[in-house]
Amino acid sequence: MLIVPEKFIADLVSAEDAFAAVEATFAAMAREEACNFPVVREALGEGRQYGFKSGLDRAGGMLGVKAGGYFPGNAGKGIPNHQSTVYLFDPDTGRPTAMVGGNLLTALRTAAASAISIDRLARRDAKVLGMVGAGHQAAFQLRAAARARGFEKVIAWNLHPEMLAKLGEVAAELGLPFEAVPLERMVEADVIVTITSSPAATLMAAHVAPGTHLACMGTDTRGKQEVEPALLARARVFTDEVAQSVTIGEAQHAVAAGLIAAGDITPIGAVIAGLAEARMSKDEITLFDGTGVGLQDLAVAGAAVRRAKERGLGEKVEV
Amino acid sequence: MLIVPEKFIADLVSAEDAFAAVEATFAAMAREEACNFPVVREALGEGRQYGFKSGLDRAGGMLGVKAGGYFPGNAGKGIPNHQSTVYLFDPDTGRPTAMVGGNLLTALRTAAASAISIDRLARRDAKVLGMVGAGHQAAFQLRAAARARGFEKVIAWNLHPEMLAKLGEVAAELGLPFEAVPLERMVEADVIVTITSSPAATLMAAHVAPGTHLACMGTDTRGKQEVEPALLARARVFTDEVAQSVTIGEAQHAVAAGLIAAGDITPIGAVIAGLAEARMSKDEITLFDGTGVGLQDLAVAGAAVRRAKERGLGEKVEV
Repeated sequence: MLIVPEKFIADLVSAEDAFAAVEATFAAMAREEACNFPVVREALGEGRQYGFKSGLDRAGGMLGVKAGGYFPGNAGKGIPNHQSTVYLFDPDTGRPTAMVGGNLLTALRTAAASAISIDRLARRDAKVLGMVGAGHQAAFQLRAAARARGFEKVIAWNLHPEMLAKLGEVAAELGLPFEAVPLERMVEADVIVTITSSPAATLMAAHVAPGTHLACMGTDTRGKQEVEPALLARARVFTDEVAQSVTIGEAQHAVAAGLIAAGDITPIGAVIAGLAEARMSKDEITLFDGTGVGLQDLAVAGAAVRRAKERGLGEKVEV
Repeated sequence: MLIVPEKFIADLVSAEDAFAAVEATFAAMAREEACNFPVVREALGEGRQYGFKSGLDRAGGMLGVKAGGYFPGNAGKGIPNHQSTVYLFDPDTGRPTAMVGGNLLTALRTAAASAISIDRLARRDAKVLGMVGAGHQAAFQLRAAARARGFEKVIAWNLHPEMLAKLGEVAAELGLPFEAVPLERMVEADVIVTITSSPAATLMAAHVAPGTHLACMGTDTRGKQEVEPALLARARVFTDEVAQSVTIGEAQHAVAAGLIAAGDITPIGAVIAGLAEARMSKDEITLFDGTGVGLQDLAVAGAAVRRAKERGLGEKVEV
């Protein structure tokens, strides 16, 4: 089997690679050629979380698991709080084929999912990108979003405004004017990406103009919430996996409030596979509920392994 | 992190190591210092099964997962149908610490569990060991059982009698007389180990004498069954994990029939930790329902890693 360490990932997997890999696995899910297995997520005590996301993609020939979690004491030891590794197996024989550092891959696959949603669902003429959230992951989301449309401006809001400067630097790198705005001014955005760890709705329905596409990327567990549930009732809602969307995703709140039902939510893979309509009018609000599925992790890890093999990188070991 | 390949395991982990490691983790479970996470087990099609057993042992400092499954096409390719690998992580930081070949370890931990049950629950004067089942795993069970009591004879039954010769060779190695018998003659045994993949009860209550200890090791999934449910009603029932015992273990059938309830089943760890009585009389039938938990896998993998470090074996890699 091949070990592809974390330090090689930045050189091996581009945002385009991640986009293509995640798009292919979303389509395979919609064609029922790929499925995610039940998620294991456990509290270890002292704020530590650990779990396993796994799945099988028959179309892509992928079987595997991402083992990962959150260890709040790590930062003090000089290592990232988020720790994850992806393990791949041969789906025909069950033998391990690769172990891949999963920290950067997790950021890339999350950014790819929102970029895919923008590519498929935002208006072609979208000009203003709104960012809600300015943490570590926001920079990945901004870079990936900027590839999907010809944005001319970025407006951004964060609970802690002092963190916006760093996101502004990313916008500058991309050659995009950047403005910190109050939430009310998100109504100027054509596309809004939310990427917070908020426990309650931040972005309200009144902050969103007709025709906007939203990618809500922060809600991946029970009790998190980024937007007002009324917004989901007003929007056509898309997601990576409906089962996760209604239980641990942004849609959990609108479903609990009886505003929408699982049947109202379209898997983005169905759009990619040509099985469902994308945006149907210029005034429609589209909302992508990105919950993060194991198959995304396997897809980008598979891309890392292919690139590593092409370039002779990584370490071969016998297990 | 350290890679400990499958080929080293036989030299690194003895039956005694496995016994001590599994006994310690069972006791930690009973003291609530260790817990198994939910099991993921999925059908991949064409008879292939894959899944993940994971857990945390705070007492033993172990966090990890066994990824493994059954791939019936492997035998034709010259590799084992059962394939598994154990991945260990630092429970404080979440960083991967080891990857260990899990095939032999699975056999050792399963044998250790039944030996522990014999050690703790069988009569001290047990002389006749009965084996029901004579497949690959039966040899491990026999060797481990023979360490736990001063057996003077082995009697054995298998659905396919031609497979008994091989088990007879193991008995001969151990210096024990061996006799193939009909199931009715299991009534002569003081300890009976069942290790079959039977879908229906094979060993009946009438085949078991008062004072016998049974270790039922074959039922690890819904729909498997080795013994008549009436036997569990007659016995004091012990298990590795009650939640698994009543859902996927041998007890599933007696519970479904209303003959026993979860509250009637004692975790073997409680006996080891001094929190529950072992055998209470010479005529009592004791029955251990060995379902196989993730913590057993982590425990023996941890033992392999310790031994490998002591001997400078295995390969260090960076991930």
